[in-house]
Amino acid sequence: MQLRLSLKFFWKMKELNIIKIGSAIIDDKLLFKKFLYQFESLNGMKILIHGGGKKATKWSKKMKIPIKIIDGRRITNLKTLELITGVYAGQINKDIVSKLQCRKINAIGISGVDGNLLESVKRPVKKINYGYVGDIKKVNSKFLLNLLNIDCIPVISPLTHDNNGQILNTNADTIACEIAISLSKKFNVNLYYCFDMKGIMKSLNDPKSLIENIDKNHYKFLLNNNILSKGMLPKTKTAFYALENGVKKVLIGQSEMINNKIKHTKIIL
Amino acid sequence: MQLRLSLKFFWKMKELNIIKIGSAIIDDKLLFKKFLYQFESLNGMKILIHGGGKKATKWSKKMKIPIKIIDGRRITNLKTLELITGVYAGQINKDIVSKLQCRKINAIGISGVDGNLLESVKRPVKKINYGYVGDIKKVNSKFLLNLLNIDCIPVISPLTHDNNGQILNTNADTIACEIAISLSKKFNVNLYYCFDMKGIMKSLNDPKSLIENIDKNHYKFLLNNNILSKGMLPKTKTAFYALENGVKKVLIGQSEMINNKIKHTKIIL
Repeated sequence: MQLRLSLKFFWKMKELNIIKIGSAIIDDKLLFKKFLYQFESLNGMKILIHGGGKKATKWSKKMKIPIKIIDGRRITNLKTLELITGVYAGQINKDIVSKLQCRKINAIGISGVDGNLLESVKRPVKKINYGYVGDIKKVNSKFLLNLLNIDCIPVISPLTHDNNGQILNTNADTIACEIAISLSKKFNVNLYYCFDMKGIMKSLNDPKSLIENIDKNHYKFLLNNNILSKGMLPKTKTAFYALENGVKKVLIGQSEMINNKIKHTKIIL
Repeated sequence: MQLRLSLKFFWKMKELNIIKIGSAIIDDKLLFKKFLYQFESLNGMKILIHGGGKKATKWSKKMKIPIKIIDGRRITNLKTLELITGVYAGQINKDIVSKLQCRKINAIGISGVDGNLLESVKRPVKKINYGYVGDIKKVNSKFLLNLLNIDCIPVISPLTHDNNGQILNTNADTIACEIAISLSKKFNVNLYYCFDMKGIMKSLNDPKSLIENIDKNHYKFLLNNNILSKGMLPKTKTAFYALENGVKKVLIGQSEMINNKIKHTKIIL
């Protein structure tokens, strides 16, 4: 028992960085290049999770597939699902992997379907029928550990599956959070939500209005006074959920923050 | 030395099955289901490589991207490359993986870009400019061994990269052959080319005209008498190349052949 606890303690010392990037970075050549540099510079074990909503919207328009997004969530019928499977797991994922490989980072691009990484359940129809959208049921963290152990850096696209042959569309912020929680049993996990803004802002148009620290009381205050913009609400909520479930640190901001080079928002319990 | 030789001999005893499927199977619901069953039934270590040309053609038409195919090779400009990256590494790859996972086969979908699996060089322009088409330079067989060692079954889409950030389109038959050769240093490799026909036929329309064994002399005779159909030529050539470079067995035919349940063509040196 003593030995086991000590070993666990020793194991806990290892740090793992989980970084999530969204369309705002992926779709902007300069921001994407900056991000790649920061990701390359970050030492130690790391995992990347990406979104890709903007490109999915662009391709939906090209293919004349109607787009319906409610509260930031894409309504996903079978045609949309086929399209985003190509855009997320194909185009965006392999583009990121090839650019990381070029920088001698041994990336491996996977989705939640591969290695049974993310098992989910199709969201039940209540007020809204989201279609082929999955809520995560189980994270196969052993698979990620195995990949890290063979010196691969996982690059994860936001698809999950119901383990019955059905691929499902799942929010990338949520995937990053659930993976971070599941790996926090083995590592000190830092979770970074990277986007194009400095962090959470009091006023979107005022770069000086960055909120550097948000604790629960502050969060309630921001909520009650409608200071948080709609886009920031779910991200902040997810950040608190991660911290409450074992993740050590959650930061929100531009990609330079992963190397502590720029002001950002830190979420504090 | 003695010990080393014996160990090598012992190691050689392990069998690895490499199966390639093309569009004829992927695009036919019944054939695809039959294939999944045969792949599931096949014991031991296995790797799957898939093509997807028919679906790429279908999506090119939808997207109004001109299609140009010369001698079975797709001329690949940047638009075509983006499209096939989505179709091959996204749609087809994840569809196969989700259906294998549903059958409790721990598939992991990758491309030649992931884990630096397949480094290639952009084909030099001679008579024809193939565009973003890659000829394989190096197979990272250690990466595949690592995946097999963590009990993953690799499902590989036909993309490679130049290790300089450029994804390239590469023929799936060739990829299967090169991977088979590179792994034949560690395993007794059986290479199966699965498609919708019984094997190599004297006459495409006569199911009784299956040629069950083809050796080099027979191959020359078939060639000289124009008996081999155009589609069969490169496949047969690739099969001989594999055998000449260490692969133990090459079979061509329908998917039931992987479990030895149906007549097929065996290529013999």
